[in-house]
Amino acid sequence: MNTEINKLLAPRSIAVVGASSNSHKLGAILLKNIIEGGYKGVVYPVNGHETTIAGLPVYSHYAQIPQIPDLAIIAIPAQFVLDVVREIGQKGTKAVVIISAGFKETGREGALLEAELVAVAKEFGLSILGPNCLGHVYTPKKLNATFGQGISRAGRMHFISQSGAIATSIFDWAEHHELGFLDFITLGNKAVLTENDFLEYWLENPAEKVRDAQRLDSSSYHPIGMYLESLTDGSRFIELATQVAKNNPLFILKPGKSSAAQKAMQSHTGAIAGDDVVLSQAFTQAGVIRCHTIEDMFDLAKAFSWSDAPEGKRIAILSNAGGPAVVSSDAVIEAGLEMAPLSKETKELLTRHLPRAASIVNPVDVLGDALSDRYEKALRLLLEEDKVDAIMVILTPQVMTEIEKTALVIGRLSQKYRKPIFCSFMGGQLISSGEKVLSKYKIPFFSYPERAIGALGKMWWWKEWQKEAAKKQTPLEVAPVVPSAQHHHLEYIRSRLVAGERYLESSKIQELFDDWDIATPPSTVVANLEQAKRFAGIHGYPVVLKLSAPELLHKTEVSGVITGIRGKKQLEAASQQLIGRMTDLPVGIRKTTQLQMQSQIENGVEVIVGIKRTPQFGNVLMFGAGGTLVELISDHNIHVLPVTARDIKKLVEESKAYALLTGYRGGQSLALERLYHLMAQLTDLVTKLPFFAEIEINPVIVTKDEAYAVDGKVILSEF
Amino acid sequence: MNTEINKLLAPRSIAVVGASSNSHKLGAILLKNIIEGGYKGVVYPVNGHETTIAGLPVYSHYAQIPQIPDLAIIAIPAQFVLDVVREIGQKGTKAVVIISAGFKETGREGALLEAELVAVAKEFGLSILGPNCLGHVYTPKKLNATFGQGISRAGRMHFISQSGAIATSIFDWAEHHELGFLDFITLGNKAVLTENDFLEYWLENPAEKVRDAQRLDSSSYHPIGMYLESLTDGSRFIELATQVAKNNPLFILKPGKSSAAQKAMQSHTGAIAGDDVVLSQAFTQAGVIRCHTIEDMFDLAKAFSWSDAPEGKRIAILSNAGGPAVVSSDAVIEAGLEMAPLSKETKELLTRHLPRAASIVNPVDVLGDALSDRYEKALRLLLEEDKVDAIMVILTPQVMTEIEKTALVIGRLSQKYRKPIFCSFMGGQLISSGEKVLSKYKIPFFSYPERAIGALGKMWWWKEWQKEAAKKQTPLEVAPVVPSAQHHHLEYIRSRLVAGERYLESSKIQELFDDWDIATPPSTVVANLEQAKRFAGIHGYPVVLKLSAPELLHKTEVSGVITGIRGKKQLEAASQQLIGRMTDLPVGIRKTTQLQMQSQIENGVEVIVGIKRTPQFGNVLMFGAGGTLVELISDHNIHVLPVTARDIKKLVEESKAYALLTGYRGGQSLALERLYHLMAQLTDLVTKLPFFAEIEINPVIVTKDEAYAVDGKVILSEF
Repeated sequence: MNTEINKLLAPRSIAVVGASSNSHKLGAILLKNIIEGGYKGVVYPVNGHETTIAGLPVYSHYAQIPQIPDLAIIAIPAQFVLDVVREIGQKGTKAVVIISAGFKETGREGALLEAELVAVAKEFGLSILGPNCLGHVYTPKKLNATFGQGISRAGRMHFISQSGAIATSIFDWAEHHELGFLDFITLGNKAVLTENDFLEYWLENPAEKVRDAQRLDSSSYHPIGMYLESLTDGSRFIELATQVAKNNPLFILKPGKSSAAQKAMQSHTGAIAGDDVVLSQAFTQAGVIRCHTIEDMFDLAKAFSWSDAPEGKRIAILSNAGGPAVVSSDAVIEAGLEMAPLSKETKELLTRHLPRAASIVNPVDVLGDALSDRYEKALRLLLEEDKVDAIMVILTPQVMTEIEKTALVIGRLSQKYRKPIFCSFMGGQLISSGEKVLSKYKIPFFSYPERAIGALGKMWWWKEWQKEAAKKQTPLEVAPVVPSAQHHHLEYIRSRLVAGERYLESSKIQELFDDWDIATPPSTVVANLEQAKRFAGIHGYPVVLKLSAPELLHKTEVSGVITGIRGKKQLEAASQQLIGRMTDLPVGIRKTTQLQMQSQIENGVEVIVGIKRTPQFGNVLMFGAGGTLVELISDHNIHVLPVTARDIKKLVEESKAYALLTGYRGGQSLALERLYHLMAQLTDLVTKLPFFAEIEINPVIVTKDEAYAVDGKVILSEF
Repeated sequence: MNTEINKLLAPRSIAVVGASSNSHKLGAILLKNIIEGGYKGVVYPVNGHETTIAGLPVYSHYAQIPQIPDLAIIAIPAQFVLDVVREIGQKGTKAVVIISAGFKETGREGALLEAELVAVAKEFGLSILGPNCLGHVYTPKKLNATFGQGISRAGRMHFISQSGAIATSIFDWAEHHELGFLDFITLGNKAVLTENDFLEYWLENPAEKVRDAQRLDSSSYHPIGMYLESLTDGSRFIELATQVAKNNPLFILKPGKSSAAQKAMQSHTGAIAGDDVVLSQAFTQAGVIRCHTIEDMFDLAKAFSWSDAPEGKRIAILSNAGGPAVVSSDAVIEAGLEMAPLSKETKELLTRHLPRAASIVNPVDVLGDALSDRYEKALRLLLEEDKVDAIMVILTPQVMTEIEKTALVIGRLSQKYRKPIFCSFMGGQLISSGEKVLSKYKIPFFSYPERAIGALGKMWWWKEWQKEAAKKQTPLEVAPVVPSAQHHHLEYIRSRLVAGERYLESSKIQELFDDWDIATPPSTVVANLEQAKRFAGIHGYPVVLKLSAPELLHKTEVSGVITGIRGKKQLEAASQQLIGRMTDLPVGIRKTTQLQMQSQIENGVEVIVGIKRTPQFGNVLMFGAGGTLVELISDHNIHVLPVTARDIKKLVEESKAYALLTGYRGGQSLALERLYHLMAQLTDLVTKLPFFAEIEINPVIVTKDEAYAVDGKVILSEF
């Protein structure tokens, strides 16, 4: 794939199929953009009806082109595309961009056409971008192969957009903000090439290759921005993104949180949105910054292109106005940052250089009559203060304010220090001259200080993730499982699946937990009252009596559980009651229903532990408060597998249930290590027996000494 | 006050004390702004050293002015202000603006000066705006009495800013966006005139008076925007705001959520921030929209000036691009709005008028090659669709897009229909010509569609509040209290307060609850085991035994409560245990400690009900999950008093505890009416006996038949 993507981005020659001299046609705009963009390679227009276009000789068939072009770009109606792609394949060109629309996005017929296209691509080993895309831009070769306004400005940032329309808005916005790109890829329908292919390419061909030409923006990253409506392969994306994020920031706008948005996407791109909570968690684990709005995405594009992330979270605010400084202090805390405490020395120096009425604690207020020199003195002191990791400069256009000159001062100082300086010049007409200067010096500036601080907060979040990711992780320790036991369960589950079943009965779950060293309370299946009494004789009261059948997933809802049985009398009454209820069950369920008896675990905290297979990211481990609290406090903390020992601990510690577990209101400490063990064993179980759609243990009761899986539900995968 | 504020806003004559011909001085800028702004009244410069300024004769003393000016504006150093204010008072001018800084905001000395100023204002009955303010603007009289760039553009909006600096930014921003104001007040230190005075003035002098001159913007409101760092009198503000919000939207940016912001404010304006959660709740009750960022505030300024709020929450999205439409669908749900379902007829008409590939469900996608005519057809259909309450139009600058022409089409259609149309033309340079046109037609437009939808969401929230506020409220019914009992408690509490006490002992709390018809479990003070056994003989087991002393506020923390006593043996053991613990208590507490016995209420749900007096807004009623869940699920729902019956019901229904109360997981239904009764009685208690800092009943146990106040803590006010 590497070679083809390299040819796609930096081709020595390009064939434009559908090139035209009719300026209203896409092929004409495309050709014009390529030529006027300054592309230096050879361009071959292909068109059956014309002989010269824009002074270039035209080839009526792809086969006639005198060499094998590195890249073919197709902009002809959908119904002709397939034949042309075959010609391209026969000729030997491997990198193809299909601009043409009329495929999957239009319905069943288009989807069929696209399936055929994929088959042809396989046959000839083609790397195809699109169809239904806007093309791509690669600034090191001055290649603007889009039919949009395109990008001429070179920069450090990669960008991938599934939507062509958002791309046109980004082009226009970027031009306005003088922000450059390294490359810009529009994916369209992702028939062949997906976001993962480009991530992989950039991982394997890191930025050094193009650095010489690209030392233009002031950050040291090659940030990757993305607008995606769907992930093609979530697990692979997370693998790649985790690698990418170790060196370069990756931020993504992925809509589809609401069902309304999901409906909109279905009618537009056929993309199916996954479970959004899992998606967010997967991004978090991979160090990917999730943008919630288009504005967030633009903010981060500018922030990461022009500035490194701060090395710490202590922010100093410098302002010529109290009000916005107050608002910004709120924003600092909300962004997960801190107001930097200034050292005594800095405060003394500020006192010496600023007027008496100025505020010399953070936020530093240089007052409304501050000229550029006062900004300069204060900013320099803050840049030199060790306790400050980043500086937010606010300017309001007051009567004496030197807007442009202050911007110049900030620009010059930014070149002497590596510390991030973010700006907000607040206003409209008056401050625009200042913003022009800030642009030139590549100081990230924002219309509102809260936006700047929000961006700094996200940068710091990523920086912290990086630091964490660089640490060595203790591998997860699991108790070994006897191979014959594993084989036995595998065979049994297979037999259930073959029989079309999707549930496991309690006794089998009990066996599974036993073999995987997951503690359960003493328990047995009882056939009659005598057996029940014998069990109580051995294990003592209180006991729990319950109906057990594979299909009875929510026992409490059919009143199939009686707890707190504290003596023989109660035991007799309870067993009569449950046997009575059994006869009320539908015949199909009744047949497989048994009476199960369990020692009741007292003096513990109820939690829930579960694992669920998701279509996008595989198995997800879930932990939260259990029993009746599950729904009440909606304590669903998740982690996408695999997990480390530290991940499990964190999952528990960050839950609301943790307050209950750690001696909530003066209780005694509980066997947390045993809980972690249970969770680790459960992850091992689903890894070794990959046939579960869902396992939920609710409750797990954590006592002083043990974490007991009291009730387990298992759903097998659908095959 | 009315007359003075009228003179302040629309004076027939103005004296400028500190007027100067030295263009660097504030007084010079001020005079220039007044004259060049087009003010038509008489202007008297006052200055001891000059004879003519800007062609006007100068008066060396205020007394020399040949008439009594309606308004005096002072821009001289702080130390001279007081004398001048006295002269002004003696002359008879009542409305005064003090621009000069150097008062409370500078520390103790300034605060003293300001206190003197307030005294002088009282002596002469002066209405003073400031000191330390930027002045004010009143566009109907073309009065720009600020030393900022000021505002020339007339509009419908009132604005109050405590910060002068934020005012300068708003001026510049508003100019850029062609947004006008009716008046703009900067409050400064609020020594005399506060936000409440202006709210009152606008309530009593509604917009009709100035409507003729002001039929410029397209909304039918006179929206009020505010930036406040402190509320001068929270309760009064809420009273006024509630009245204002019934007719006109009121939106406010009030920072101080974080402690960092509070610190920043203290060093800038000396304003003390109240409890932010209570503040937010008070705003919500009063129909006041709270802005969280400066951007929110600007967005609403534009939205409410140019558009009425939607009549419903069903939003249609119209776009030439799928991506932003998807993102916007997410935003619609997040803003508490709904995606409008289109009728069959509209869909058919859309199908007829749009190309086959277009999306005719909401969001409506007119496709990337849409010209202005396609936008026009679709927009007209959506405007005529009854099921659509507002329309969000998105435009991305694609190759064929007619940016200006589309804006024109939208503008013209907006004049024919009253339905709100909000726009986002996404980009930079390319789309700015379109934005100019939208500005002219006063179509609210935003750089990002999410911002537009966020503003629509807030408008709809206000509209719903309005509808709710217009409904008749059932007054709160409370059980009458015997006057002699009320008198008895009043006297007793007074005696405690006089003795410097701040707590009430359990037996007194029991009496209070009895007299206010708040149910409590059977309970008694017992002196010995015999008495305890007798109580159990009458009321039965289980019982609770507890230590009771006014100072023992958190009984469980000193192990002073034993619950679940189910027989004589246990009762004996428990009383011995507690008597043992009593001897461990500090002597001072031991003296007042008693042994209290209570029937234990079983089979109920524990909730917490409390009332707390806040400095800003008076008494606040609190409700939430009780017992050990209090801290775990942080279920603190509050309502600022007074409450209606509906408010109490809503407070309970919107809590997380409500799930527990309404047959959570199949339990039986509980005596909610009795809970509402208890809450109503408690509000009556704190209203009739206004000496409580805090009353907390935790738990209230709600059973099938009753809501029992099981344990009450009372803290008296500090005097």
